[in-house]
Amino acid sequence: MNVEVVAVGTELLLGQIVDTNSSWIGEQLALAGLNSHFQTKVGDNPERMRQVIQGAVDRSDAVIITGGLGPTHDDITREIIAEVVGRPLERDEALVAVIREMFTSRGREMPESNLRQADIPAGGWTMEQQPGTAAGLVVPVDLDDPLGKVIYAMPGVPHEMHAMMLGTVVPDLMARSGEAAVIRSRTLRTWGQSESGLGEMLAGVIDYLDDPAHGVTLAFNASGIEGLKIRLTAKAIDDPTAQAALDDAQRRVTDVVGPIIFGIDHDNDKSHSMEAVVLAELKAQGLTLGTAESLTGGMISARLVDVPGASAVFRGGLVSYASDLKFTMLDVPEGPVVSEAAVRAMAAGAVKLLGVDVSIAVTGVAGPDPQDGVEPGTVWMATSLDGKVEAHMATFPADRNRIRQYTTITVMNALRLRLADRSAT
Amino acid sequence: MNVEVVAVGTELLLGQIVDTNSSWIGEQLALAGLNSHFQTKVGDNPERMRQVIQGAVDRSDAVIITGGLGPTHDDITREIIAEVVGRPLERDEALVAVIREMFTSRGREMPESNLRQADIPAGGWTMEQQPGTAAGLVVPVDLDDPLGKVIYAMPGVPHEMHAMMLGTVVPDLMARSGEAAVIRSRTLRTWGQSESGLGEMLAGVIDYLDDPAHGVTLAFNASGIEGLKIRLTAKAIDDPTAQAALDDAQRRVTDVVGPIIFGIDHDNDKSHSMEAVVLAELKAQGLTLGTAESLTGGMISARLVDVPGASAVFRGGLVSYASDLKFTMLDVPEGPVVSEAAVRAMAAGAVKLLGVDVSIAVTGVAGPDPQDGVEPGTVWMATSLDGKVEAHMATFPADRNRIRQYTTITVMNALRLRLADRSAT
Repeated sequence: MNVEVVAVGTELLLGQIVDTNSSWIGEQLALAGLNSHFQTKVGDNPERMRQVIQGAVDRSDAVIITGGLGPTHDDITREIIAEVVGRPLERDEALVAVIREMFTSRGREMPESNLRQADIPAGGWTMEQQPGTAAGLVVPVDLDDPLGKVIYAMPGVPHEMHAMMLGTVVPDLMARSGEAAVIRSRTLRTWGQSESGLGEMLAGVIDYLDDPAHGVTLAFNASGIEGLKIRLTAKAIDDPTAQAALDDAQRRVTDVVGPIIFGIDHDNDKSHSMEAVVLAELKAQGLTLGTAESLTGGMISARLVDVPGASAVFRGGLVSYASDLKFTMLDVPEGPVVSEAAVRAMAAGAVKLLGVDVSIAVTGVAGPDPQDGVEPGTVWMATSLDGKVEAHMATFPADRNRIRQYTTITVMNALRLRLADRSAT
Repeated sequence: MNVEVVAVGTELLLGQIVDTNSSWIGEQLALAGLNSHFQTKVGDNPERMRQVIQGAVDRSDAVIITGGLGPTHDDITREIIAEVVGRPLERDEALVAVIREMFTSRGREMPESNLRQADIPAGGWTMEQQPGTAAGLVVPVDLDDPLGKVIYAMPGVPHEMHAMMLGTVVPDLMARSGEAAVIRSRTLRTWGQSESGLGEMLAGVIDYLDDPAHGVTLAFNASGIEGLKIRLTAKAIDDPTAQAALDDAQRRVTDVVGPIIFGIDHDNDKSHSMEAVVLAELKAQGLTLGTAESLTGGMISARLVDVPGASAVFRGGLVSYASDLKFTMLDVPEGPVVSEAAVRAMAAGAVKLLGVDVSIAVTGVAGPDPQDGVEPGTVWMATSLDGKVEAHMATFPADRNRIRQYTTITVMNALRLRLADRSAT
């Protein structure tokens, strides 16, 4: 079964927005074992949209369209689908009621133009998931062959599209394809080695896995604050076979790289971030956490509270951006604030100020200019655990934003390793 | 002149890499006044690459291909271009020498397979810029019409591609098109109205601009924490004419929506974020800023320090995630912490604790579960300016992450409006 993706929007062609939707959809199709051979971006232009969607319907079994379902005059995906399948648009009164209710519940008046969003090509239906005012559409190309070619249309807003793709499109495609193959993946998240370093360490494992008999592929993916990921993907006749192949590959990788793996995601699960792992370990050990941040400006605490349930562990943090706040609130000794003495005092000061068991502290230069003669990328990091502070320095040759990201994941990794030692002894 | 973009690589279809190359190329073409109506991703498959590239040559004047120029067996862009133009590959001995020299100068032996990178379709030539081992190619489709249709091929490595695009492809396309047109754009960033609300308010302006004689198009782009953008794009014979058309369109939009515009970006400039605008206004008025955050967990302060030069204004912030930190550090009265009384006390407490002139404070429920009987999405926000605290509540029907983003931009916008009032009086 061949599935094709069409992303609609002039802003995509002009580079005002990067089309991440098609990539994400491609990933979901691959995980479901479905082929996706073409992905096209086209502007909000009737003739060119017709050309692209008609071409996709001709050469593929299913076409997934994102974008062009909004209420404004340039949102014409509904109209073009109706033309391509040769059937009229019909106003769906149930959908009218849903859209009206959305506006009423938010205490807003519904602009009449929004009713266009209730028009659907005859013979099509709406998806159950509808987080916004735009409904997702399922439109069979030929009503005499309802299990034949099909067009799906989803809004371009990523979180709305994600819900519809996982809730309706993938299950519907799987049912239509009747294919027995499954694809399963595992993502081993690592921190502490470069991609080429990992490549050298794992050369033997990669050679072994390259043999098609083992059914697993290995790929690296450097993801900034999310770590450097080792992605294992298995295609097999059923789930147990795929899992067994992944178990074997995972064991081989772990035997080589060991403790730099901090979390393992299965398939679409992306919950094993560094901060989630650290918070879970703190919770298991019954410890509370606080932060003292300078160059990261709150990025560390913001990442922590992004984990559901963080409040059981994380109590709060101080962003001491101005030097004098470090002196007065954290008892940092007067002197250079990008230094071991300063970061140690910040970690100890955070424990006292915030009434926590464990703390993280960072101070450094994010650039672009040096500060007090210290070069951008120079960062001091410390953790306080059981009243004992450990500190280390790192140099990140990167831009302002990535220096902050690397600082965040590196200091959390240092705490993770200390917590692992603590629980082992 | 119509230019089409084809990105080659199975990893792009599988979502292992997001195709940012096409977006970037689209942006460069738009800035050069060249149309780009289609962008396609295709895998490393001979038949499908042929189909896509042939289709692109048929319907467009120029085709820009990225990817598939490496030394490995699945890099077949050279071969497919040769097939499409109907001419053989020829080994370019000068290029062989260049590639050999690259390996020698790095002290590495050249694998024989790398010589494939010196094969170019007969009648084509290489681009002057060559940062890596892959040469960029310029291949006229018809040798009897050398200024007619043309195919460009560049490697997929972004920095190599960028050098070739700016150094060869754009100038060559401009010379071929002979077109004098320029494209200029302005992005009016707004906060406080929905997309459909803006659409209704601006219906008259949109009708006016729809007349091609006015030469400006208007599009909306909802960008979360970046605000809701109104993008004006003008195509004209020269820069002054384009700027005059944009001035006129901007004045018409501003007359209608007025104060909800908080920043204006020109062309590729993307620097007028809400936080940059607020920091600039605080600096102009000689005021320092501090924050007290609960549900946002540091997102507000992290956004602020992301603006270069923030340290002149922003002193620091307290992330008081646990309720008792609000009571002890910010003098919040014991009681419900998602309340007007709590947020007012937080704003006043931040001014005192951090020694600042101005503060921002937020407290609310990010969800997914209610807290103390308060529904997710309920947020209290306050600002303190000249010793006077103003507070308001908002309800954001959104997920955890977007509740935080909307909170961040909404409270900063409230401060922006107060600062504008202050400077007006």
